[in-house]
Amino acid sequence: MSRADLVLAGCRQLLTCRGGAPKRGSALADVGLVENGWLAALRGRVVYAGDERGFKEEVRLEPEAETVDCRDFVVLPGFVDCHTHLPFAGSRAEEFLLRLQGWTYQQLAAKGLGILTTVAATRAAREEDLVRLCLERLDLMLCNGATTVEAKSGYGLSFEDEIKQLQALKKAAVLHPVDIVPTFMGAHEIPPEYRGRREEYIALLLDTILPEVRSRGLAEFFDVFCETGVFSAEETRRMARAARAAGLQVKVHADEFTDLGGAALAAEEGARSAEHLLAVSEEGIRKLAASGTAAVLLPGVPFFLRLERRAPARALIEAGAVVALGSDFNPGSSMVASMHLVLQLGVFTLGLNVEEAIVAATANAAYAAGREDRSGRLEPGLQADALLCDIPHYAHLAYELGRNPIRHAFKNGRFVVRDGRRT
Amino acid sequence: MSRADLVLAGCRQLLTCRGGAPKRGSALADVGLVENGWLAALRGRVVYAGDERGFKEEVRLEPEAETVDCRDFVVLPGFVDCHTHLPFAGSRAEEFLLRLQGWTYQQLAAKGLGILTTVAATRAAREEDLVRLCLERLDLMLCNGATTVEAKSGYGLSFEDEIKQLQALKKAAVLHPVDIVPTFMGAHEIPPEYRGRREEYIALLLDTILPEVRSRGLAEFFDVFCETGVFSAEETRRMARAARAAGLQVKVHADEFTDLGGAALAAEEGARSAEHLLAVSEEGIRKLAASGTAAVLLPGVPFFLRLERRAPARALIEAGAVVALGSDFNPGSSMVASMHLVLQLGVFTLGLNVEEAIVAATANAAYAAGREDRSGRLEPGLQADALLCDIPHYAHLAYELGRNPIRHAFKNGRFVVRDGRRT
Repeated sequence: MSRADLVLAGCRQLLTCRGGAPKRGSALADVGLVENGWLAALRGRVVYAGDERGFKEEVRLEPEAETVDCRDFVVLPGFVDCHTHLPFAGSRAEEFLLRLQGWTYQQLAAKGLGILTTVAATRAAREEDLVRLCLERLDLMLCNGATTVEAKSGYGLSFEDEIKQLQALKKAAVLHPVDIVPTFMGAHEIPPEYRGRREEYIALLLDTILPEVRSRGLAEFFDVFCETGVFSAEETRRMARAARAAGLQVKVHADEFTDLGGAALAAEEGARSAEHLLAVSEEGIRKLAASGTAAVLLPGVPFFLRLERRAPARALIEAGAVVALGSDFNPGSSMVASMHLVLQLGVFTLGLNVEEAIVAATANAAYAAGREDRSGRLEPGLQADALLCDIPHYAHLAYELGRNPIRHAFKNGRFVVRDGRRT
Repeated sequence: MSRADLVLAGCRQLLTCRGGAPKRGSALADVGLVENGWLAALRGRVVYAGDERGFKEEVRLEPEAETVDCRDFVVLPGFVDCHTHLPFAGSRAEEFLLRLQGWTYQQLAAKGLGILTTVAATRAAREEDLVRLCLERLDLMLCNGATTVEAKSGYGLSFEDEIKQLQALKKAAVLHPVDIVPTFMGAHEIPPEYRGRREEYIALLLDTILPEVRSRGLAEFFDVFCETGVFSAEETRRMARAARAAGLQVKVHADEFTDLGGAALAAEEGARSAEHLLAVSEEGIRKLAASGTAAVLLPGVPFFLRLERRAPARALIEAGAVVALGSDFNPGSSMVASMHLVLQLGVFTLGLNVEEAIVAATANAAYAAGREDRSGRLEPGLQADALLCDIPHYAHLAYELGRNPIRHAFKNGRFVVRDGRRT
């Protein structure tokens, strides 16, 4: 018998995504559906997820257990947003408006717009401003289903400003129920003051900031933007190795606009994930499929930028890659804080079916964020992070556009969203 | 001096969309922006919309006037959803799921799925069931910004069931603050029992149902699905003329999948609108541009159906057509009840800029629904239908994906959405 202090009782449908992570091939389409499903948790951890008979046989309620009648709800694991640039300051709405009116990249740059706008605003922000912004955004993300959020620095691009971003994440993580997975991404861009001195900037990252990040436990991941005009494949490889040697796991922004072989490199270097992949080669797909490196697809980006190109989601799935979904929440190319919408973009713009999109946004996204031991599935031992959706069938997660179906959410067994609002 | 019983005071930005409707060409990109804008209304009608100085000179408050501090809000006209199939019963989520899993149209039809599922469910529903469904959906639409909704019959396809749908709309209109513009669309499909007897079905529509609709005042518009396999151009023309002769205005579902010349026909016959237009010809574009027939674009449909094809929005705008946006809310091809999302789909999938999308969803959509004398703009004499959006600049209407920015809404000068919830 397992003891329980929380029961989600008689769920219309319970999606467990059980069976471990990561998931590939046909497992990607298995959401672990239980009709009339029962979920029990004790002190924030799942102790049972399955049918009613098993629940009655295996679970004993604590005297003060809370029981939630879920007959009207489809219940699934909280989403894991495995790629965000959460701690930024400033807005890029003006740039957005001008771009839609037909301004070219050059015209925008001449007006001083682009990523450096965000770098300047983030450098100018105080740490507590960044904390406040993170908390507001985490509330929005949580109401749209994310119970775990990976979050990157990379708009500081100096010792003190990268550390400031990561410290803001650490403080936000203490103040907010959403789990934050911090990523040091000083290798997001070469800052203006290092133009023409890229080796010096890489040395700053590896020799000065990285040790500080490590010694203070400010990040779990190191991420590099491997792209024409940013960091080359060779630089990416060098930094990835240094980061791993320093004890961080690696992520690579790979093959977003041009194919520099970033996906293959990520697989070769044992990166946890290769992200974007709009321009990934067939070799890159094969190498990802043969590796433990997750293919993180970010459909908000080409949608937001109105690009025709899409990541080859079906080819990746058919090759056997670990496909995950993330928002890439950032002010320049994907102002989308809703993993529910990202799931729908996965379905409607990448050709995922609903089941694949659910697994990609939960179990596999947790793997991409290095949290498959805690999040992304409703299995005994994992966190009781669950979304209670006011829909008659899980198909409605994609079927109904423009409506947030998440009525309630639990994080570690506690109510964190009730009636669509943060508690 | 004008008297006022409602003031929206000091709006961060007020978008009036002033200057009449319909709007073409460069007027489509003019949202009538007033920074620090003031809006005043008396008994549900706008009496003033402009700057603060004008407000102070021209407006005198009634003793019990309500003043809403709008310094944190962008205020714009309520959206007009000019194309919906609101009063249906049943769900098509199962068909949706199978379609995404790769089932062909033929396989789905063999299982009895498709539009006839909805016809069967709608025929089986009682009028009060349809009223309840309409009211629930209108709440959702209103929270997402629509203060006027066109709504079509067309899932009854028999005398009593078409009348039942239109009666349900009439009752819903009495019970709900959203204005409903009813459209008789018996010409949505040939019902199974009339297969091979299409002339008899057309005779039923024109000789039996249409007079009843007319005499009971159940519809303002007559709509025909002019498409290969549904109604031919010739049949469409004949029905359009009969409907006009009976005193109804005409809409045409035109050139959605194949080019039957539906847009040109709609323009020639003086239809108020031609809708869909994914397959419209250059001649169709020219004829629309030279006419008063609005080009209603429904970006939810190709998105939901995962089609590559899009309506040629930019060509229509450049030719001078009256471009409007609608949801096409229906269970088979566009399950989107949010005009806010439709505006974003207009921007991100049709190439509209933000200003054009706003005008297309307000002033021009009101024109397409025949309500330009009442709705879609914030000008003296029109209804005080206004959205108060919790954003720093109107660009954020499109810039932030996956977040409903509508904090409050007014319909005819009354609070109908407060803090994101129906009052």
